[in-house]
Amino acid sequence: MSYFDAASAAPLHPVARQALQASLDEGWADPARLYREGRRARLLLDAAREAAADAVGCRADELVFTSSGTRAVHSGIAGALAGRRRVGRHLIVSAVEHSSVFHSAEVHEADGGTLTQVPVERTGAVSVEAYAAALRPDTALACLQSANHEVGTEQPVAEVAEVCRAAGVPLLVDAAQSLGWGRVEGDWSLLTASAHKWGGPSGVGLLVVRKGVRFAPQGPADERESGRAAGFENIPGIVAAAAALRAVRAEAAEEAARLRELTDRIRVRVPELVPDVEVVGDPARRVPGIVTFSCLYVDGETLLHELDRAGFSVSSGSSCTSSTLTPSHVLKAMGVLSEGNVRVSLPPGTPEEDVDRFLSVLPGTVSAVREKLGAPAEVTKTPAASDTLVVNALGKRCPIPVIELAKVIGDVPVGGTVRVLSDDEAARLDIPAWCEMRGQEYVGEEPADHGSAYVVRRVS
Amino acid sequence: MSYFDAASAAPLHPVARQALQASLDEGWADPARLYREGRRARLLLDAAREAAADAVGCRADELVFTSSGTRAVHSGIAGALAGRRRVGRHLIVSAVEHSSVFHSAEVHEADGGTLTQVPVERTGAVSVEAYAAALRPDTALACLQSANHEVGTEQPVAEVAEVCRAAGVPLLVDAAQSLGWGRVEGDWSLLTASAHKWGGPSGVGLLVVRKGVRFAPQGPADERESGRAAGFENIPGIVAAAAALRAVRAEAAEEAARLRELTDRIRVRVPELVPDVEVVGDPARRVPGIVTFSCLYVDGETLLHELDRAGFSVSSGSSCTSSTLTPSHVLKAMGVLSEGNVRVSLPPGTPEEDVDRFLSVLPGTVSAVREKLGAPAEVTKTPAASDTLVVNALGKRCPIPVIELAKVIGDVPVGGTVRVLSDDEAARLDIPAWCEMRGQEYVGEEPADHGSAYVVRRVS
Repeated sequence: MSYFDAASAAPLHPVARQALQASLDEGWADPARLYREGRRARLLLDAAREAAADAVGCRADELVFTSSGTRAVHSGIAGALAGRRRVGRHLIVSAVEHSSVFHSAEVHEADGGTLTQVPVERTGAVSVEAYAAALRPDTALACLQSANHEVGTEQPVAEVAEVCRAAGVPLLVDAAQSLGWGRVEGDWSLLTASAHKWGGPSGVGLLVVRKGVRFAPQGPADERESGRAAGFENIPGIVAAAAALRAVRAEAAEEAARLRELTDRIRVRVPELVPDVEVVGDPARRVPGIVTFSCLYVDGETLLHELDRAGFSVSSGSSCTSSTLTPSHVLKAMGVLSEGNVRVSLPPGTPEEDVDRFLSVLPGTVSAVREKLGAPAEVTKTPAASDTLVVNALGKRCPIPVIELAKVIGDVPVGGTVRVLSDDEAARLDIPAWCEMRGQEYVGEEPADHGSAYVVRRVS
Repeated sequence: MSYFDAASAAPLHPVARQALQASLDEGWADPARLYREGRRARLLLDAAREAAADAVGCRADELVFTSSGTRAVHSGIAGALAGRRRVGRHLIVSAVEHSSVFHSAEVHEADGGTLTQVPVERTGAVSVEAYAAALRPDTALACLQSANHEVGTEQPVAEVAEVCRAAGVPLLVDAAQSLGWGRVEGDWSLLTASAHKWGGPSGVGLLVVRKGVRFAPQGPADERESGRAAGFENIPGIVAAAAALRAVRAEAAEEAARLRELTDRIRVRVPELVPDVEVVGDPARRVPGIVTFSCLYVDGETLLHELDRAGFSVSSGSSCTSSTLTPSHVLKAMGVLSEGNVRVSLPPGTPEEDVDRFLSVLPGTVSAVREKLGAPAEVTKTPAASDTLVVNALGKRCPIPVIELAKVIGDVPVGGTVRVLSDDEAARLDIPAWCEMRGQEYVGEEPADHGSAYVVRRVS
């Protein structure tokens, strides 16, 4: 078995396991109590806080432990917005943040706040200019991830922090995907992260609020963790999380170089081995270990299932693998192909052979899925007389509308158009992406009786 | 060392430790993923949910795991209030609930909701009649603990659930102190609990919402745990929590009888061994393992420190052991003595010898603390001419005002009064309690230039 989904959760680091087991005996008592067991628990908690703060590059009293990265984001955003309520109620986020950021933003909007989503380039990164342009006098908080969880693209955090600082706006950095690899550079104000992404246990996140940042914790009061994270502290988990962070950091430079080589291999080889593939994300500014690509004419769910059968655990942003039947908001914001999407995220220590085996298995797996779906091999037909064709793909889900389009494009003469009727959310993303990959012209989307008509002009 | 503070946190049950270690290898992946590691994690989570639901006596789909008991209470109260917002915004709680309930109630009131606190009897229990009287047509939610965390008194939950049901009001039961001992009987609507109270790991709570109860989760949306507990699931912790619950339940009947015998021994022996002690809480309707008493003329913090030096870890509701310098709200609501307060809560498995050693150590410890504070041994003085004395105890903290009162009561004739000037919160509770214990008459409290004047009439 090759587990290639470290961006969701990494297996427990051996150091974390040792630390967890050791602290089960010492860290179960209430650290607020003054008796021996409480004092021991408090010592462990304090030491873990010092270690985590050192890894983050902040003061220990700026860092609290939460019950998850999601909770850290929820609490961080709510507290920072409330702390600056007098300044205004405008929130800025990038269009490719983690869902926990978007869910916080939804609550803020429902409560009367305003929101700006900064768009991203096709690489998945925001431009500093676009981010700066979103800042307003009433901006209470800006949020930007350090690196994207679906495509691995690093964001220009230090530069954005600088423009935010100049505008007097605090920047919250969701560092979930990068903290194991190194500190987040730049003059940010708040930072969140999640231990199970770096080989710590689940059930531990962290929230850093720099001194001087106005912060008003929301929700019911609680004395623990400086009032910023309610509930009895999970000290064995916290100790293990801090130990794992220290351990992965010690190995980070060497392991990053090794994983970069492996993901670069996937970036280069997959398009050579598999036809009609788009590799997405920035080719250079990226975290180690994550590489993402999309395959035309492929049903993501079936592909994941077949890869699982072949011994590979990966994830996907395709619409058919989500409960909402819409493609991932990240791929949407980037404007890249979403069908047959595969994210490979290698945990530290992934053997080179596993990656090579993946590269040897993938082409056959993709072509088997395509064959099953009746995807077109090559367009060889002679054009018919009509220079306009309508394809009715209503009720059909990704990747069928694109497959139907590809099947008939050869039936119209060069200059002729195909109108694809579709009510599948993914078509809006994937038909333009297909045009770009296949050198055809995407004319646009028009309303139709049901769903939309996507108009494509044959160019070659 | 004898750890007698199980009501704060119990040491990890051996079964929990085994389950935790086993599930570290199997339960770290994302249970929402469809690949092998995700499916394994999902199986563990589902099995733990079944086991916990069986212990609670509910359906598995009524139970979610939270990151702590506090979070379960916060989410349960907020969700139930929001779900019944159309009915009204009235919340009922007993006066002796856990602080997490009160903190939720504060948020509710700050947001425009109304609150009724049902008073308790001197035993710490609410009367069903008083609870029923608090119900109103606009009552959205009622909360009642199954047993009190400071004095062990069981609440009449089943009877209160019945009157709530008749009024169409959902009852939320905080079962933190009792779930390890058995199911909560009665027709309650919501239930919360905390794993580290029953020997599970910290970082796991549970929230049960019965089918048919209107419930609208508050805060940012999240797909996990039916949308009722945001953040990546701590599956190893959850598995360990469920395993521990099953294990303590298997031993509960026998262990409850044994611990009851030990706490009864403390209840009976402490007043025999130590003069001027009030044992608090219901003598019969109580959870096993908890016994609480207060000692006149004793500084709770010093007593805890001395008991810690003697090898006993206990807690206290005395004002001097709290960060707010006010006595515990539970002791206040019961109207019992708060000075020199000691809660003994025995973890399952406590050896009888440890309890006997505690009983042998306690009298000397208490008398040493009293001696250090200059507490009066016996009132032997001859009354002075004046029939009114004023004791200025301003700026002095518990137990000094009571000690000063006791020192001079013999200086006034029978029928004469002593006015104690005090700005210590604990005096309001402890001076009337002293009068009751010493058979003197508490006349009342009058405003003074600083603090209050507490007037006591010598009767004997």
